[in-house]
Amino acid sequence: MHALTITPGGLEWSPRPDPVPQGSQLLVGVRAAGVNPADLLQAQGHYPPPPDVPPDVPGLEMAGTVVEVGPLARQFKVGDRVMGLVGGGAQAELALVDESVALPVPSEIGWESAGGFMEAFLTAYDALICQGGLTVGARVLVTGASGGVGTAAIQLAAAAGADVTASARRTEFHPQLRALGAHRAMVPSEASVAGPYDLVLELVGGPMLSSHLGQLGTSGRMIVIGVGAGRQIDVDLSRLMSRRAAIAASTLRARPLFEKAKLVRSVGDRLLPRLASGQLRVPLAVTFPFPEAPAAYRRVGEGGNLGKVVLLAGS
Amino acid sequence: MHALTITPGGLEWSPRPDPVPQGSQLLVGVRAAGVNPADLLQAQGHYPPPPDVPPDVPGLEMAGTVVEVGPLARQFKVGDRVMGLVGGGAQAELALVDESVALPVPSEIGWESAGGFMEAFLTAYDALICQGGLTVGARVLVTGASGGVGTAAIQLAAAAGADVTASARRTEFHPQLRALGAHRAMVPSEASVAGPYDLVLELVGGPMLSSHLGQLGTSGRMIVIGVGAGRQIDVDLSRLMSRRAAIAASTLRARPLFEKAKLVRSVGDRLLPRLASGQLRVPLAVTFPFPEAPAAYRRVGEGGNLGKVVLLAGS
Repeated sequence: MHALTITPGGLEWSPRPDPVPQGSQLLVGVRAAGVNPADLLQAQGHYPPPPDVPPDVPGLEMAGTVVEVGPLARQFKVGDRVMGLVGGGAQAELALVDESVALPVPSEIGWESAGGFMEAFLTAYDALICQGGLTVGARVLVTGASGGVGTAAIQLAAAAGADVTASARRTEFHPQLRALGAHRAMVPSEASVAGPYDLVLELVGGPMLSSHLGQLGTSGRMIVIGVGAGRQIDVDLSRLMSRRAAIAASTLRARPLFEKAKLVRSVGDRLLPRLASGQLRVPLAVTFPFPEAPAAYRRVGEGGNLGKVVLLAGS
Repeated sequence: MHALTITPGGLEWSPRPDPVPQGSQLLVGVRAAGVNPADLLQAQGHYPPPPDVPPDVPGLEMAGTVVEVGPLARQFKVGDRVMGLVGGGAQAELALVDESVALPVPSEIGWESAGGFMEAFLTAYDALICQGGLTVGARVLVTGASGGVGTAAIQLAAAAGADVTASARRTEFHPQLRALGAHRAMVPSEASVAGPYDLVLELVGGPMLSSHLGQLGTSGRMIVIGVGAGRQIDVDLSRLMSRRAAIAASTLRARPLFEKAKLVRSVGDRLLPRLASGQLRVPLAVTFPFPEAPAAYRRVGEGGNLGKVVLLAGS
């Protein structure tokens, strides 16, 4: 097979041995694989992958067809259309995924959307629903709202009955963010003073984060998922104390398989029907063929995309 | 009556009109009233009290005998021994407390202990149990462990089956902290590197707080209740993210009555039997007669007390 490979000279689409499924792993003939900001960090050497994945092949999510199953796999069989969440190795013609973190691709959904679903929707679902306890009427701020996680979060928050403010730099995306369910879309300088918010999903980091903290209402909570614009913050704890506020920070990737499996199961039960019916969708900024991955990475690095950047296998 | 009064010249034990109970308030003939760090802040003008209490009479907790009841009070009657949590006004011969935030004083418990029970135990119970979800086997660090909240927290955490590390500057107190239930007592420089901890109850603040953050284990949580040594912190969010850690900050005093009432009810149901049986106790550092309140405040300000400083009415 070929796989996207991190080399000292940059990313290369290179031949390497086919992986072999062990235990409850599935070997997937990848049709589409999303590119996420974490992949860029990994390619730059800043975000070493967990020990159970190939260290030099990036990719946290993929969709494709099962071509072989490990001896303990029970839920899927050869030929099934699946999408999976992995710690790395997804941006390749063949990828391994444990069946506990794979979901069937609904028949209504194309490869592009399936390849970009898992990371963004699992992250947003975990942060907003599992950790944030989001429910009807909660005032939510989604920062970096035009990205993959942001567009997933807007849809989930709106579906949960929350009052959703989307913060995004590019005003040309604001109408689309409203179409996804945001009750209002603002540029960051506006959104960062438009609280109080019960929940802030922080996907950007940097100096604006402190302003967002200042907009938390009583018992408000900030959940930090992305800090690309800066990870260091200065906090006045007495201000948090008077509002009984909390800051939680999280990543999906560092979790053990059993925790990811629980989350994948919950998303399968609760979100797949909505994905199939079209109530939830995966906005796509742009797709690239696998061998043009370096261009895809540049697009993610430049930012300013509405939705996901997804790599596609040649058909 | 006389009340401790904040004047431009300092604290004075001064005459003032008797308060009159309204609604569901009780008028309590105060026998004992704890002194808390928040009182010192208020006396220094740094911690303005909520609007429903006399602005110049400090005191967040008291115990005494009901001498009059408001027209809507139903749970207590004249002559009952009660202890209460208030937003201010407790350090006086007569104090008002809404009956929803009063508890009966168990017959086994003396005034000194009753007067120092509410603030510390409600704070520790709320932080460890309600917010922290503390349960068997959790590794807990209690900082500032020799103070009122600290000694309450050690007992509650041990009672909940947690593994309790007490951090306290004065090594001469360490044996008593172990006697209260701490599995180990350490000076702050030791405790701040002895993690991982699942829960850190931060009662001190200042530079050591960042070390404590660094000792949070996976899914660990810091609950910030006191920041006397410094309230500004610098946080590297990416370190929190990789451990999925959270920082929550809280105060009791700022909460509305209905929230305090819910907490008081829960503590009444769950902790009063243990207080009555002697499984929980209120360690007393020292008591002072009401007119010597300025000396009591100095003692609290100097720190280094084991347990509570409590003011007593003349008998």
